[in-house]
Amino acid sequence: MAWTRHHILGLADWKAEEYEILLQTASSFREVLSRRTKKVPALQGQVVTNMFFEPSTRTRSSFELAAKRLSADILNFAPGTSSLTKGETILDTAKTYLAMGSDIMVIRHKEAGVPHLIAAEMDRLQTGVNVLNGGDGQHEHPSQGLLDLFTLCSLLDYENPRLELLKGKKVAIVGDILHSRVARSNIWSLRSAGAQVHLVGPPTLVPQFFAEMTVGSNGDQLFVHWQLEPALKDADFVMTLRLQKERMTNYLLPSLREYHQSYGITRDSLKLCHPHVKILHPGPVNRGVEISSDLMDDPALSLIQQQVTSGIAVRMALLYLIGTLNS
Amino acid sequence: MAWTRHHILGLADWKAEEYEILLQTASSFREVLSRRTKKVPALQGQVVTNMFFEPSTRTRSSFELAAKRLSADILNFAPGTSSLTKGETILDTAKTYLAMGSDIMVIRHKEAGVPHLIAAEMDRLQTGVNVLNGGDGQHEHPSQGLLDLFTLCSLLDYENPRLELLKGKKVAIVGDILHSRVARSNIWSLRSAGAQVHLVGPPTLVPQFFAEMTVGSNGDQLFVHWQLEPALKDADFVMTLRLQKERMTNYLLPSLREYHQSYGITRDSLKLCHPHVKILHPGPVNRGVEISSDLMDDPALSLIQQQVTSGIAVRMALLYLIGTLNS
Amino acid sequence: MAWTRHHILGLADWKAEEYEILLQTASSFREVLSRRTKKVPALQGQVVTNMFFEPSTRTRSSFELAAKRLSADILNFAPGTSSLTKGETILDTAKTYLAMGSDIMVIRHKEAGVPHLIAAEMDRLQTGVNVLNGGDGQHEHPSQGLLDLFTLCSLLDYENPRLELLKGKKVAIVGDILHSRVARSNIWSLRSAGAQVHLVGPPTLVPQFFAEMTVGSNGDQLFVHWQLEPALKDADFVMTLRLQKERMTNYLLPSLREYHQSYGITRDSLKLCHPHVKILHPGPVNRGVEISSDLMDDPALSLIQQQVTSGIAVRMALLYLIGTLNS
Repeated sequence: MAWTRHHILGLADWKAEEYEILLQTASSFREVLSRRTKKVPALQGQVVTNMFFEPSTRTRSSFELAAKRLSADILNFAPGTSSLTKGETILDTAKTYLAMGSDIMVIRHKEAGVPHLIAAEMDRLQTGVNVLNGGDGQHEHPSQGLLDLFTLCSLLDYENPRLELLKGKKVAIVGDILHSRVARSNIWSLRSAGAQVHLVGPPTLVPQFFAEMTVGSNGDQLFVHWQLEPALKDADFVMTLRLQKERMTNYLLPSLREYHQSYGITRDSLKLCHPHVKILHPGPVNRGVEISSDLMDDPALSLIQQQVTSGIAVRMALLYLIGTLNS
Repeated sequence: MAWTRHHILGLADWKAEEYEILLQTASSFREVLSRRTKKVPALQGQVVTNMFFEPSTRTRSSFELAAKRLSADILNFAPGTSSLTKGETILDTAKTYLAMGSDIMVIRHKEAGVPHLIAAEMDRLQTGVNVLNGGDGQHEHPSQGLLDLFTLCSLLDYENPRLELLKGKKVAIVGDILHSRVARSNIWSLRSAGAQVHLVGPPTLVPQFFAEMTVGSNGDQLFVHWQLEPALKDADFVMTLRLQKERMTNYLLPSLREYHQSYGITRDSLKLCHPHVKILHPGPVNRGVEISSDLMDDPALSLIQQQVTSGIAVRMALLYLIGTLNS
Repeated sequence: MAWTRHHILGLADWKAEEYEILLQTASSFREVLSRRTKKVPALQGQVVTNMFFEPSTRTRSSFELAAKRLSADILNFAPGTSSLTKGETILDTAKTYLAMGSDIMVIRHKEAGVPHLIAAEMDRLQTGVNVLNGGDGQHEHPSQGLLDLFTLCSLLDYENPRLELLKGKKVAIVGDILHSRVARSNIWSLRSAGAQVHLVGPPTLVPQFFAEMTVGSNGDQLFVHWQLEPALKDADFVMTLRLQKERMTNYLLPSLREYHQSYGITRDSLKLCHPHVKILHPGPVNRGVEISSDLMDDPALSLIQQQVTSGIAVRMALLYLIGTLNS
């Protein structure tokens, strides 16, 4: 099967074959990154525009470096000093970057659906421009879901990361599921792999309706918990999510300390899990809130650094796959 | 005739031959941009410094991409976090970038004359540095004037854009002429081409004295109107200008709505024009103020996207012409 | 002797041989910078991350251009829009850039010791990452100290800049020594060269304890003065420091005008110096405060532009020496 997808907007409709191609491509770029000269000329002369309407360090830098490794030219759009403050619409901003010659647009926006809106307009105008969702509101963050998938599969078989490795594995996702685009993208990819996904957090942040999300019949299942114990019991992987401090002021949480007491991951709570359990976190981490500080720094337990490293290879793979579609 | 101009500060003193060289050079760079690998090594190793003391998305990005297409190295100066806030003068900032090895400086400043000041100092010090005005106060925005000219001439003869194509054409410039550096640069270039230029807007924003600007005898004429009808009558091209909302608070305008009623360009008002009329706007556009939203999106009428695309080719041409003068 | 130092954190423990290697390497890069194509492929594929937690124009741009001249890929970290505002620790931010594949980190922070903290962590994790201090609090600014050294030695022997040229030379450092990381780095390098260093400024900004700093026995000496005359008498070089205006509000200074009266360098005060005296300033300059405006612009007296130019060659040398250590 060959790659056919033009835009990376979310993982909700990804097919197993697409995940496999992505995992293999990322794996081959990881090999490039281990060489002394870590660049390939794959996207030379192409323009990747980073349109981050919401501030971001790690995702923007990761896409920027991935694009540079592919020898693309990068334009960084800074919303603070932009035409948006002069009354221009988002679509007009996108069309301006289109007219300048952008080949790929990476878009982050605090409102869900903005990347889809731009992708639809690019298609309507038959521009051939590819759109990559760098995180949209509380909807999806597909490159994060894919880098988490690549990290897990690579841990299980470094040379040949593939979906089936996760079949039947128990993955606990802990924290503010309700507001998390990372959780949503991970739920899609993990279930496509046939994993057992257990969501856990306070009832205000993990509503029951999540249990009703389905992705076809793959042996996969989705569970909702409001207590840590059943979620962690024999878990193979624990994904912790960033807790945004503003949730407290919105009356969704009593205090960070109480949150940590009930849902923070510590060496103690890990005793419930499978002996080979590993922890993930999309970053940035509030140490001592979502996860205890010593745990985060323990390379035998934490995959956090591997996640960031995977991010470069996965984003190179995404940019490469969509950027070379028409050539 | 060979290119001899070191700085691009304004179009007021440009000769016809210079416009012709610019149009031809931009045309050849447009051909480069249509190739798969859109880069040429013309300015390899040279440093282009973007000194935008005033925020800008499109002009800064356009110069940045043009410079990258020519393989130059770019330095982006960010005034917000700069030495200016520590008490340094503008000339000292420029001299610092000179001492770092800048070959070309692109300068935007909210005060008219800053690029000229820096160019004069660069010449006095016999530095060989080239200065490009990226927009200075209400004075000039030469690269915008040139990309508008290139857009119009290319429409009339794509393969061979040249000044004479505009001879006798009627061009209406609509809006806040008084505060517009874009209008000023366009007036110079359009009159050099022998076009009939009609300025129109409310009397507070289109003072009578504009009718007295002259550029030698070329068959060209400049008219001032305070009503849309005579300006649009049989017009070949309508250039709309961005209306800055702060003009209202300065008692120069009653309201955006009344402005749109009197001077906004709509499908209806275009009926007055030549059947093949096209609309331009330097962007960013306030939809529904300067121009109705549907008009802006109609590719049969709007040249707005072509203007942005022309911007890359024209800025490559400008950087190339001044950057290779001494070699 | 071969280069062995992995991190550039400060000059306090530099050996004479290290200064000599640095001066020679910078000299050879200056030769590269005089060519038409000013780039070398030395660091191709390597990633230099500029982590400037404190705003900076000149130092950041200088490192960025130096890295580009060496063909490295650059990541610019912008603290304002960063994960720090989301509760991430500095070490976690650094580890994120490590995991992305940074080879060299250039770090500026308003608190002393941050680059050391990051370097220690990089070593503990056996990452091989090199850390370069771009200015930490009131502690050190080693690349500035080295570019000043290179500027002075190059003035005395352009073809063969070396430490011994400064032996016995009298250097006055004027201004706010107490808060100056530039002064501290210069004191180390100048004394290593065997220069006589005279510190001068108001007693609130030049405490007596500076006279007690020692760097081994090299014939070098350090003097503290509270009046300009003895410091400038027969001085070969006068280094002025930037006066931060906030010092006044902290009751350390009466007014800028009185400061200039007592400690500002003017044509008059220079009459006390050696006839061939030259003036340095790390920039940005408050004209008419630390130094009179006409003096600053006099190429016969001021080395300020040479300092900036030296900065590119010296930073290329630093990046090159640490970046090619393991290859």
